[in-house]
Amino acid sequence: MRRWMDADSYGEPIAIGGLLPCTLIGRVVDSRCDGYDAGDFVTGRGTLSDFALLEVDGYTRRIDRSGLPSLTCHLSVLGTSGLTAYNGLVKVGRPKAGETVLVSAASGSVGSLVGQIAKIQGCRVVGITGGASKCSRLLESYGFDAAVDRLGKAADALAHDVRSACPHGVDVYFDNVGGPSLEAALGAINPHARIILCGMIGEYNSASPQPGPRNLWQLVAKTATATGFLNREYLADAKDTLRQLRSWIDEGRLKWSEHIEEGLENFHSAFMRLFGGTHDGKLILRIAKDT
Amino acid sequence: MRRWMDADSYGEPIAIGGLLPCTLIGRVVDSRCDGYDAGDFVTGRGTLSDFALLEVDGYTRRIDRSGLPSLTCHLSVLGTSGLTAYNGLVKVGRPKAGETVLVSAASGSVGSLVGQIAKIQGCRVVGITGGASKCSRLLESYGFDAAVDRLGKAADALAHDVRSACPHGVDVYFDNVGGPSLEAALGAINPHARIILCGMIGEYNSASPQPGPRNLWQLVAKTATATGFLNREYLADAKDTLRQLRSWIDEGRLKWSEHIEEGLENFHSAFMRLFGGTHDGKLILRIAKDT
Repeated sequence: MRRWMDADSYGEPIAIGGLLPCTLIGRVVDSRCDGYDAGDFVTGRGTLSDFALLEVDGYTRRIDRSGLPSLTCHLSVLGTSGLTAYNGLVKVGRPKAGETVLVSAASGSVGSLVGQIAKIQGCRVVGITGGASKCSRLLESYGFDAAVDRLGKAADALAHDVRSACPHGVDVYFDNVGGPSLEAALGAINPHARIILCGMIGEYNSASPQPGPRNLWQLVAKTATATGFLNREYLADAKDTLRQLRSWIDEGRLKWSEHIEEGLENFHSAFMRLFGGTHDGKLILRIAKDT
Repeated sequence: MRRWMDADSYGEPIAIGGLLPCTLIGRVVDSRCDGYDAGDFVTGRGTLSDFALLEVDGYTRRIDRSGLPSLTCHLSVLGTSGLTAYNGLVKVGRPKAGETVLVSAASGSVGSLVGQIAKIQGCRVVGITGGASKCSRLLESYGFDAAVDRLGKAADALAHDVRSACPHGVDVYFDNVGGPSLEAALGAINPHARIILCGMIGEYNSASPQPGPRNLWQLVAKTATATGFLNREYLADAKDTLRQLRSWIDEGRLKWSEHIEEGLENFHSAFMRLFGGTHDGKLILRIAKDT
């Protein structure tokens, strides 16, 4: 969402004064599409507004909350976060049992799922996150094998700590942040490592473009791959992926967290939490009651 | 060879006072290996020395010069340079007819072959090189469609010129140099672009590690891939690749250039030419007469 505001990002940037595109859950008021009736709950790409006009596309689907703790699951573990974690890790990263998977922004909505899915795949999982309480959460709630606290650390210290936490090296790195975390990961990769570039949130609000890691050479030395990843490439498989995620939920193998803010008028302060790390899990803005 | 001197490169670095490993052509004095007899010309990995002990491995092969203009072809177009160009471009880059292929250090021994092989694949080919005479050579000798002179240009100017020379964007970028050329290429890539990281010669002699490109985000925005590449991963296919290269030579479809310096005592000045660009094509040091 932040990146859609930039000129150098994917597609046309949001116009000044234009409506903000977003992933939403809403209730159908009126429908001209088969399979979508008034009263249905749907999720899809729409706009940040009281009422939105949705054209049915690959993102749109009817949802129900039966057996789920909340409707908002369809924005988090069964929505963009779950799809991003699964597609990026499993389809791009292709982790094998016994490999080490490293993930940044590990306590976030995507990172925490990446870690848990990697554990399900039989991997050793290490997370980079900011602060002692988030580190504890990785170990205690999400079942990570090790956690690295990036707060207050210079790039070289972070790189050292990542290497210590990954004594057998890193086979798959799921990157949500760019910057020093990416450089630290590159310093620890094994031959044929796969780096999934999912986001670079640490750089989105920089006044000028930030330089990349000083050790890109490691991609050559380790014949490793860095692949940019966008969920939209995997829309066709979304149903199967969501079925897999749902069955893991039903088996009690996935935990997730949602941070819900209230009211359209509070959008800006809610949005800015993304960059301060003062939220826990999927950040959601509730505009209307979900009944 | 330069990278083998560094601690953070592939494998153990060369010891202080140790022999320099190199790719060589030599004549067998004595042999304890089937298929290699005294008097045979062989190529393989050995040491920079008057006499070298070769253990037969995936790099070693008997060679003959019949039908070739020189024995040294087996170090250039039918040696490391040709294998690197073919494997990196064709196997990692997978260019399709009609796509745009960009290559840096384009007038060098690898780059000039990358461009010509890309033309054989039906691609539009653009080269980045240093100086007007090298640009002319790309267009006139090697059949490139466009050439960009990087000399004296700031990063943003180079990026602008690369975009102008690639009006349909870059589908495959073969990178030999890193630095501003890599940044310029990233600024011009198309969705699903493949970047082959083959070397970063522009950075090898830096006193401290150089920051990476400021626009790595483009890998995400374009769901593109950057893959580190080493020839040794493709040793098993070398025979087939060399047969393909040889048939293109026989058809007159490949040109190449060799710069031969003489004498073991001149190694250092010869070696330093690699970083000054004051040579033309494959840089070879002749230690003994090739008869």
